Parts: sequence; structure tokens; C-alpha cells
Amino acid sequence: MHMMDTPLLLNGFIQRAERHFGHKKIISRTAENIIHEFTYKEYAQRTRKLAAALETLGMTKGTKVATFCWNHHRHLEAYFAVPCSGAVLHMVNIRLFPEHIIYVVNHAEDEIILVDDSLLPLVETVAPHFNTVKAYVICGDDVDLSKTTLPNAYSYEELVEAAPDDHQFPEDIDENAAAGMCYTSATTGMPKGVVYTHRSIVLHSLAMSFADGVGLRENDVVLPVVPMFHANAWGLPFACVNLGSTQVLPGPMFTPQLILDLFEQYKVTVSAGVPTIWLGVLQEQKSNSRDLSELRCLICGGSASPLGLIRDFEEMGIAYYTGYGMTETSPLISLSIFTSDMSDYSFAEKMEVRTTQGLTFPLVETRIINENGDVPWDGKTMGEILVRGPWIAAEYYKDERTAETFKDGWLYTGDIGVFTKDGYIRITDRTKDLIKSGGEWISSIELENALMTHEKVFEAAVIAVPHEKWMERPLACVVAKPEFKNNISKEELLERLAKEFPKKWVPDDVVFLDEIPKTSVGKFLKAKLRDELKGNVQKI
Amino acid sequence: MHMMDTPLLLNGFIQRAERHFGHKKIISRTAENIIHEFTYKEYAQRTRKLAAALETLGMTKGTKVATFCWNHHRHLEAYFAVPCSGAVLHMVNIRLFPEHIIYVVNHAEDEIILVDDSLLPLVETVAPHFNTVKAYVICGDDVDLSKTTLPNAYSYEELVEAAPDDHQFPEDIDENAAAGMCYTSATTGMPKGVVYTHRSIVLHSLAMSFADGVGLRENDVVLPVVPMFHANAWGLPFACVNLGSTQVLPGPMFTPQLILDLFEQYKVTVSAGVPTIWLGVLQEQKSNSRDLSELRCLICGGSASPLGLIRDFEEMGIAYYTGYGMTETSPLISLSIFTSDMSDYSFAEKMEVRTTQGLTFPLVETRIINENGDVPWDGKTMGEILVRGPWIAAEYYKDERTAETFKDGWLYTGDIGVFTKDGYIRITDRTKDLIKSGGEWISSIELENALMTHEKVFEAAVIAVPHEKWMERPLACVVAKPEFKNNISKEELLERLAKEFPKKWVPDDVVFLDEIPKTSVGKFLKAKLRDELKGNVQKI
Repeated sequence: MHMMDTPLLLNGFIQRAERHFGHKKIISRTAENIIHEFTYKEYAQRTRKLAAALETLGMTKGTKVATFCWNHHRHLEAYFAVPCSGAVLHMVNIRLFPEHIIYVVNHAEDEIILVDDSLLPLVETVAPHFNTVKAYVICGDDVDLSKTTLPNAYSYEELVEAAPDDHQFPEDIDENAAAGMCYTSATTGMPKGVVYTHRSIVLHSLAMSFADGVGLRENDVVLPVVPMFHANAWGLPFACVNLGSTQVLPGPMFTPQLILDLFEQYKVTVSAGVPTIWLGVLQEQKSNSRDLSELRCLICGGSASPLGLIRDFEEMGIAYYTGYGMTETSPLISLSIFTSDMSDYSFAEKMEVRTTQGLTFPLVETRIINENGDVPWDGKTMGEILVRGPWIAAEYYKDERTAETFKDGWLYTGDIGVFTKDGYIRITDRTKDLIKSGGEWISSIELENALMTHEKVFEAAVIAVPHEKWMERPLACVVAKPEFKNNISKEELLERLAKEFPKKWVPDDVVFLDEIPKTSVGKFLKAKLRDELKGNVQKI
Repeated sequence: MHMMDTPLLLNGFIQRAERHFGHKKIISRTAENIIHEFTYKEYAQRTRKLAAALETLGMTKGTKVATFCWNHHRHLEAYFAVPCSGAVLHMVNIRLFPEHIIYVVNHAEDEIILVDDSLLPLVETVAPHFNTVKAYVICGDDVDLSKTTLPNAYSYEELVEAAPDDHQFPEDIDENAAAGMCYTSATTGMPKGVVYTHRSIVLHSLAMSFADGVGLRENDVVLPVVPMFHANAWGLPFACVNLGSTQVLPGPMFTPQLILDLFEQYKVTVSAGVPTIWLGVLQEQKSNSRDLSELRCLICGGSASPLGLIRDFEEMGIAYYTGYGMTETSPLISLSIFTSDMSDYSFAEKMEVRTTQGLTFPLVETRIINENGDVPWDGKTMGEILVRGPWIAAEYYKDERTAETFKDGWLYTGDIGVFTKDGYIRITDRTKDLIKSGGEWISSIELENALMTHEKVFEAAVIAVPHEKWMERPLACVVAKPEFKNNISKEELLERLAKEFPKKWVPDDVVFLDEIPKTSVGKFLKAKLRDELKGNVQKI
């Protein structure tokens, strides 16, 4: 052994926070009008006590401990108490369909569940179907155990209160041991599980510290809007503890107003969420302006951000980083930062860069391949995006669908994209939604984005329908805004598209619908649309 | 296997540079008036060709390949060609005494040696004593092989020229495999070897990218003044390749004038070196000012920087980071960055922070212990500094002195220091040089620094001499500036010290010397002084 074999463990993160940043703050909104503020020193102490309490409930190395929790300090305590004990934190996505929740809890074999008091109605409904759960721990400020139908229920605060002060985390954890797990909803079938290791979370957290990237620092004040039950809140809670950054956790049921109030009050410097959030926040800020002079960047992912949204924030001096990732990738693997080559780009060109999914991080490799092999960096040639690296999953947990997605050492993301001339990733579609028409690949997402900028359109999905000559042709499925429901024509929509896209890309027909079917997490269920509309024979 | 077991390898760094930053520049000064400028794409291609060439000379996995080279592009090619082939790069410190050079080459069992043509006279003298060397590769712009007495000598450029274009690095290297090695001179006896692994170098390189730290980025232009034969040029060449940063390598025999010219011409943003370098650069800049508006920071280590030096650079808007480390620690483990707590510090207080060795990096742990255990963070209580982490050596290479330094999983640095109230490390002495007087620890370094600010003093060493009552007492050994040689008194020096230090700290006597004996790398040889002056009986 030449160099020390010090393992990469989350335990080192919380030790560092307590030792060097014990006086720094965590601010947590636990319910409407309730803000809890405490220090990293108190946080570390409570986290160890939580670990001790969970061990009395049967937690041991490898035990799966699930959370049904919003973004608050108790969830953050579980984020470290469980993996630093050698157990596995299963962050359940509370937005899954009930049958999927039952599946994931049973499939993961969760033995202890932490649940917010505000989410008890949800969990009480499904709990009778859980096969392996031995205890429920109810998170809240004022928990009344007599009010729940859950068996073996405990109060989080009472458990922590009663736990010994001198509990220590074990020191013999392997860096490749499981630390956390999330399930990702599948287009068909049950959700698929991804297991993170200490090593993968540590390395992903370091990437959040890279100056070429988010560049997270100790002096940042970080508010993750993205839920801690969704892809680890993009890894921010872990990275913040390592650096001693101030954390502001917005709790349940927040609004754009609340987010902006928190931004202003706590001088938030970094936040992260999906485009819908930022659209709401921008609208609120325009009508009721807060002081955002400390806010240095927003991290955005999940779906494409409209150019106007990005530009409006950037014009306020707030960097709007688009990232790329998924549950299988921890999640961040790229970010739309600027390199030195872009220093003489115009503002418009820079904004164009910000709409891409960005430059691949160090330690991670990406490829985009189609039937001709690796695509050129031309911004046009589409292919499927492949990813490899130390924070990329190698498999789905106990799932035979692993073989479809993990091949030759690469994760096949199922996303279709291009490399821009700068080598930045730009997502153009999902593999399953791509339209292959006469040898040409047509991006359903680009057509949808164009349709959704039309003033009469509420939402739009573009799908492939079978075609005799061209194999597939695009069909536009459009939901009109209520006020235009009887005043919208196929022609005006197709004319708009004809101005922006090559002739072959323009759909041959438009179908007006009352709504687009969606998955439990709000994504378009195009498979269902395709199934229903496959009989829509194209005219050309 | 939950997550991909992608190893942390230097191979990924050079792949990333070539793929994403192939057009970025490396600027290399190979000799007086010769500047070679080329791209990362060309660099990667030449590096693979060098690897192929070295393999024809017998390099295979585990082979030790030594370099006797200044900071230039050929050395940078070897930095990756050797480890990315699974072999081990031994960077020989050309400033070692000849007998030590012979020892390290034989002890490492180097089989191939790369040597600068300008260093041939040195190597030719010692080469007859090398036991394992099979080939010499001479680095230069215009090498004439007939002019060297070295056996089996090859021209670097001819080898690279003749090598195949299609050579590929192997893909089956273990992240814990040896990648590089350096020897560190010992106070007594032969130098001690440290072997770096791919994993340790990769993780250390990532630390150079942390925003809380040097924050190295792609858009940086980095000029390492610290030699590439000394602790990996503090890891900068590795980190730069990973990020695609522009590198400016200053070559042999540089001067403050040359460094400043390069800073201005190439708009250098980051540089690194020892205080002596920055003293010379500052003096030159004051008399002949260059445009340093792009220079954002200097990294300094090796010995303490005078406060005035730091302040002068900071007043120019250049951050002056003091770091801490040694060959055994890759080297950087801490840096004098500012945390949010210091945001309301006065300029003077901030400069005080910059004189410390700074905050310990993530993933690394430091302790300072004395006979009472861990010292409090009071800025006063001294103890020995201990370090642990994934880029800290676990042993000396095939050396029984390992047991003296590596104990209970910690590296005992032999440095004496304190933790400031902010938890920053401040070095106060070497274990061997510390003066233990009547139960009190007296820092020889602080006394020396004070003496060296005296206008009549050229240099000063303070050593312990035996004392009947107090066990040890400090003795000052002073070399006067030539112009004051006959006009300097013990009394004026001791009076100066009495103003700054507690009475017990003030030496009882001053000995005037013509010079302070030094090691081959310029450090005071206090052991020799102690030996010669131990008969100097103290009066009190």
C-alpha cells in the first residue's frame, strides 16, 4: 500500500462540518409559518442521536430505511444518520402512483419508514400492503401518535430526545457499500431502483465544488427547491454538508412567493429546481420584486428551459445553469458553463449555450451514437446519449431490465441528443419518442417547444404515427388554452412550424385534445397517445 | 456492483483534454530564447508516441522511468506517457547531492532516464554508479548524441518522431497502481521515497479545482514556477490537463524578469512557487512594472512568507494563498482561503490569515497533538501536525524509516504548529528544531523570522543548546549583511526580540557566523549547528 487507503465516505463530510463549521446554520421550514434554525454542531449531534434511535428500532448494516419526506432538517438528518451507520437510505418519491409506492417499498425491503406527519394520509392508505416494514417514525413538530392508524409508530422528536448523547458512527464502512437508493419511474411497468454508494455520492459531491461548474463554496447559502425525494435533491444536501455551506430547506407546499421570500430573507446564493418552478418565480418577481442581489446562480434540469426564462434571469445578473442527469447518474453529469472560447460570444450566443445541457464533468464520459457510430459535433446529427463514470449506476437493483439499459460498460440513457460545435450536449428527444421518417430523425421535443410558444397553445405533444411510405410521420397533439378552444386552427399552427423547420419535419396533421395523458411525475405519456392515435392515417 | 467501478486514472485526464480542449495551448520554454507553443491535441498525440517509444526501450507495467528535467513540455509529456502506460514516473530532484542522486536512482531501480541536454554534465558524472539503467533519453531541441558520454543514449525527438501514430494506452490499470514517485531529503541519511497512485493524484487534482481553494478552471493560464521535479509541481500539471487549462512552462534557468515577462505576454492567471521567488518577482515588478491585471492568484509554500510580501501582492489585487504540504502529502492539504466568517475582517486581519497554512481540504483530516492530546484552537498551544487522507502516503518506499513517521494510520509530519481560532494551521517549527525550555515550547521559526526583519541581518537560525536548569535554551546564529559585518551587536538584536516575545523566549546569546550550513535543497542544517555549538554554555 503506497498511499493511505482512506475510503471515500459520507462520514467524513459530517465530521468536517462539525469540526470546522459547527457554528454555521441550517434553516428549515417544517410547516406553514414554522421555521427551525440551528447549527451544524447541533445538526451533527442530532444526526448521531437519530442513528442511535434507529438502531434501537432494528437498523443495522444494510438495513433499508425509507423516507416519505419534504425538504427539511429531519430529512437532512436521515440523509447522514442512515448511510453513516452503514445502512441504506431509500428516498421514496411521494408523487408515484400508490401501486408503485407499494411496489418500491416491498421491492427494496424497507424495514423502517420515516414519514412526515403531513404525508400520513398517503402512507396510511398504502401501509397495509407493505411486507417488510417493522416501524414507522413520524416527523413533525408536534406529533400525536394516537392520531395515526400506522402500527409500530414512533415520534421522531421523542426518539431523538431519548437517544444517548455519546453514539458514534462505525469506522469500518466500505466506500463501495450502498448508501442510498431511489427508484425511477419507467415508461411501462414498475419503477426501477438505483443504489448509490458512499464513493459515488462523495465523488458527485466533489463535482458540485468544481470552479468549472456550480462552484459550491462554504460561503454559499443554498436552497434546494428540487425535492430531496427526487434524485438526492441533485446532490446538493450532501455537497453542502461537506463544505459547511448554509442550507435553507423550504419544507412542504411552497409557492413562488415563499421561495422568493426565503431568497431575500436568508440571502440565498444558489438554488436548484425544474423550469416550471423558475417560470413561477420569475412571474412573481416581476410583479413583486425582492432583493435578489446575493443570488448568484440557479441550477435547472428535468426538462428544457425556454430561452426567454433563461435570458430574464441572466439579465438580472443570475447565472442560469442548465444541467443534465437522471436518477441513474446521481444525477449531474454536465452543466451549461462558459469556457474561455465563449468569452467573445455575444449575449445572444451565450444564452444559446445556456439552453444546452452543457459540458460533461471531469471523471464522466459521454458519447452520442447512432447507426453510423459516434456523431460529429455539428449540432445537428442526433444519436442516443451514453454515459460512463464513477457516479453512474451499473445496474437496476434486482431487476432484469438492467440488461436493456446497461451495455458494454455504458449507460444507454434513452435520451436522444446532439453535440454542439463546442461539444456541449443538447437533448432533442427520448429514444421512444423520436420520429424516424424516411431515414431522417425528427425531434418531437423541438416541435413541441415551438408549438408551445404559440399564444393559443396550452400544451403540445408530437408523436410518431405509422406511415406507408415514410415509415413514420409526426402528428401534433395540441391542447388549446381555454380562451382559444373554439378559435384555433390546424393551419395557423402548421404555418408557424413551416417557418422554423425543414418541410419534412412539419407534421401532416394536428389533433386537438382536452388534455395530454401524463405519468405520475408529470411527464407526457406518449406511449398512450401513440396507441390511441396510431389509426390516424397520414394524408401524404 | 451498484455503481460503475470506473477507476480514477490519469488516463481519463488526457482523454478529456484531447476530446474537449484539443485546441487549447501549452506554451513551453525549452531553453534561453526558445519558446515552443502547441495544442493539447498535439500534446496528447506526442504523449502516446512517447509511450510507444519508451515501450520499445523496455518500459512495461511497473517499470520505473526517471526524469532529470526542468519545467517544459517534454517533461509534461512524460508526466502522462509513463503512468498512463502503467509504468511509474520517478521525478528526480536535480538539486540533491550527487551521492543522493545515485542512491535514489538505484533504490528506485530506474530502468530508463529522461534527461535535459542542459543537465547532461550532472548526469554524466553520476551515471557510472547507476545499477539498473538500461537507456537514456535526451530531451532537447537539437540533441547531438555524439556529444554525450552516456551509454545507450537516444534523442527524445527522434524517438517520438519514429514512433507509431496509432499507439493506445492500456485500459486495465488499477486506480491503486503506482503512477509516480518522488524522494524527499531526510535530515540524516539518504532520501526517502514516496510512491503516488493514480487514485491519489486524481483526487489531489480534483482538490485543485475546488472553488474553496485555488479554484482552477479551464479558462486559467497556469505557470508553475515550482519545479516539476519537486512534489509534482504541487500537482498543477496534472490538474491543468484534466481541466484543459492553458499551461505556460518556464523552462530552465528563469529569472524574475523572465517570469514577469511570461506573466504579461501570456496573461497568466495562476502561478505557484516558494517565497524567495515571489520576493524577487515583487522587487522586479516594483522597479519595472508589467501588466498583471489577469493574474488572479499566487500559491506559495515551502517556507513562511513575510507579511509585507503577501500584503504587497494583495494590494495589487492578487490573492496570495499560503498552502501546506510536503512530498508525503502530494503535496497540498490546506490553503489560506477566506471563509464567510472572515468577511468582516479588516484588511490587516485578512493578511494575518494569509500568513497561515490555512484550512484543511475536504477528504483530508489534520490533527495537532502534544503530550496533552489534541491542542485547543487558541493560536498558541503547539503540537505536532498529523495528517490522514486519500492523497497522503502510507509508507516510505522500501524503507524501514516508515515506522518512525507512519503510526496508527496517521502521517506524523515532524512539523510543529498551532490551530488558530479559525481552525487554520500555522506552522511554528520542525519537531527536531523546537526548543523545549523549562516545560515551555519555543518556536525557532518565529524568532528567526523576527531576526530576519532586522535591517542588519542577512539570515538567522535559532537552535536549542543544552542547559542545566531549563534543559534547553535558544541560541541565535546570525549572518550579518556584508555592509554591517563590523557594525552589529548582540544587544541590539536581543533588544528587538525582547519587544516582541515573552522574556523566556529571548535567546541568551547570539553567535555571529559567516554562513548558515544548508541541505542540498537550501534548508538550514540545524543539526550541524547544534552539534558545533552545543558547547556554547548559556549564561543564565
